[in-house]
Amino acid sequence: MSRFWSPFVKGLVPYVPGEQPKMHKLTKLNTNENPYGPSPKVLAAIQGELGDDLRRYPDPNSDLLKAAIADYHGVDVAQVFVGNGSDEVLAHIFHGLFQHGKPLLFPDITYSFYPVYCGLYGIPYEAIPLDESFQIRVGDYTGMKGGIIFPNPNAPTGSFLPLAEIERLLMVNTETVVVIDEAYVDFGGESAICLVDRFPNLLVTQTLSKSRSLAGLRVGFAVGHPDLIEALERIKNSFNSYPLDRLAQRGAVASFADQAYFEQCQQAVISERDELVKALTALDFEVLPSAANFVFCRHSRRDAAALAADLREDGVIVRHFKQARIEQFLRITIGRPEENAVLLASLQAILAD
Amino acid sequence: MSRFWSPFVKGLVPYVPGEQPKMHKLTKLNTNENPYGPSPKVLAAIQGELGDDLRRYPDPNSDLLKAAIADYHGVDVAQVFVGNGSDEVLAHIFHGLFQHGKPLLFPDITYSFYPVYCGLYGIPYEAIPLDESFQIRVGDYTGMKGGIIFPNPNAPTGSFLPLAEIERLLMVNTETVVVIDEAYVDFGGESAICLVDRFPNLLVTQTLSKSRSLAGLRVGFAVGHPDLIEALERIKNSFNSYPLDRLAQRGAVASFADQAYFEQCQQAVISERDELVKALTALDFEVLPSAANFVFCRHSRRDAAALAADLREDGVIVRHFKQARIEQFLRITIGRPEENAVLLASLQAILAD
Repeated sequence: MSRFWSPFVKGLVPYVPGEQPKMHKLTKLNTNENPYGPSPKVLAAIQGELGDDLRRYPDPNSDLLKAAIADYHGVDVAQVFVGNGSDEVLAHIFHGLFQHGKPLLFPDITYSFYPVYCGLYGIPYEAIPLDESFQIRVGDYTGMKGGIIFPNPNAPTGSFLPLAEIERLLMVNTETVVVIDEAYVDFGGESAICLVDRFPNLLVTQTLSKSRSLAGLRVGFAVGHPDLIEALERIKNSFNSYPLDRLAQRGAVASFADQAYFEQCQQAVISERDELVKALTALDFEVLPSAANFVFCRHSRRDAAALAADLREDGVIVRHFKQARIEQFLRITIGRPEENAVLLASLQAILAD
Repeated sequence: MSRFWSPFVKGLVPYVPGEQPKMHKLTKLNTNENPYGPSPKVLAAIQGELGDDLRRYPDPNSDLLKAAIADYHGVDVAQVFVGNGSDEVLAHIFHGLFQHGKPLLFPDITYSFYPVYCGLYGIPYEAIPLDESFQIRVGDYTGMKGGIIFPNPNAPTGSFLPLAEIERLLMVNTETVVVIDEAYVDFGGESAICLVDRFPNLLVTQTLSKSRSLAGLRVGFAVGHPDLIEALERIKNSFNSYPLDRLAQRGAVASFADQAYFEQCQQAVISERDELVKALTALDFEVLPSAANFVFCRHSRRDAAALAADLREDGVIVRHFKQARIEQFLRITIGRPEENAVLLASLQAILAD
């Protein structure tokens, strides 16, 4: 702690992202990246932007990208906000829509960045326990609150809450903002974007990092009522005018134009997930039902931390959270068939020991 | 104003960046971009990163880029912080180092984003008047304060404060952070980075947007004592783990490796500036001494707003600020020789009217 720090910095507990090891020989199933690369049309579009114009600032409003997203999701451009990954979008949401001096509600087992944002912006929060099958019970999100947020599918469980439940939540929560964080929705969920016209307090976030294979490009967005979007625009324009560079804007636009490639990768991941669930179950893992590009599973006998360490020895990286209720689970990203085979072979050997 | 907004959002007055018109026929001298494109080696490096790996998250710590910056400036990696343009770096600085309940001091005529950051983070500030020749007088930065920040060269004046003056300021200001924002320093100034080892409260920010022709890529950085850097890292890691995408990190590293190209563009801009100053003086403009890639000038008879409007009619965009003391000035970015010729021809015609 330095006397030069703003006092709140002393208490900040930053988010710890999944490891990005610099070795290349690893089977990396720890950060939920897409096993397939981005669309060749995305790469070609970025290529087309690579030139003298990089000396120019990007469009601060990302108009073409907003138009592409609005068009894709059937909403108005004024209902779209874009940012440097959905993490930046979420940061602005916490800052601009959740500072009401009342506790923000989110699940006890969820994206571990939420309490970090609360620390950054001085927002009190209350963690609402998932039920015993690790599902969100919307009826628990009651009482005085400064807002509600959860991922759907939830992370790291992968469980998807049907839209009818979200609608039920919105019917009784009309006075605070409800954010549905849909980072993983394209792998088997149904987006709540179809509800934004009916609920002016609903904001839906998505990212191009997972289903669009662009984690390396940093693009996320939010869709909701123009009043909510305006708060985010004000904050963004008081923070950094140009959070999306020229290459990211161009690549993201191209991604929305290549629906065939998107669906092909999506289907491949879903079908690989089905295979992996079967194989893990056969190895005595309990696997939570997943609508995401990862599975969350625990072995009937083996300690999860030890399993993760043994896998790592074998060059396979999965994610383990040292957190109450889930310390016996592993979160495993769906890889390409050959990566999943490496994982399973390694697990088989470890379990046979 | 929506009831869903965090209350402070209502009072936010966002920064207004220089216009980025979508027409291509304009002579665009309004946002201080480099008239020359980025190094061909930067483009080649980005090209080399364009592929399947875009599905992977970038290095959250930008280690290679920090090493390149540390090496270039002769400092330790722990003294370097990187962000999405120097605007994001500045935002984190305001948040993490200037929230002390005492007024932040900056010049009355300066980068207009500073008061915006103060609004975003609830920081009181006091604007210290430049002297009658629009220079910073370091002796005026006294009394109770929560920090000091100014650009050097200052914007939009272009005036450079000699390092001896900054040293004088640091000798008497040891208890609050002093930030020197060197966005334009490569066009004729001398960096205060050489002072960071002596003054643990000094932070120097720079950007790759101007002298390195990479405004479109969004990379900025700060250099200072590891304790100051740690505050920024904590905030960054509580905000967005990956603000610099893979292409930006790779391109930025390559830029620091091509010193010859950097110097060639730098010299070309400086020499064009000298020519432009002479020509504007001959047209009865008073031009403030500039160490930046722009000039700040007022005509002896003509109204600045009218001149800017007339230039725009002619397809030439310059920047005019509706602000006390400088409303009769125009800020004109140094363009390529042919762009400057278009500007001068247009001015000649307008003035002859």
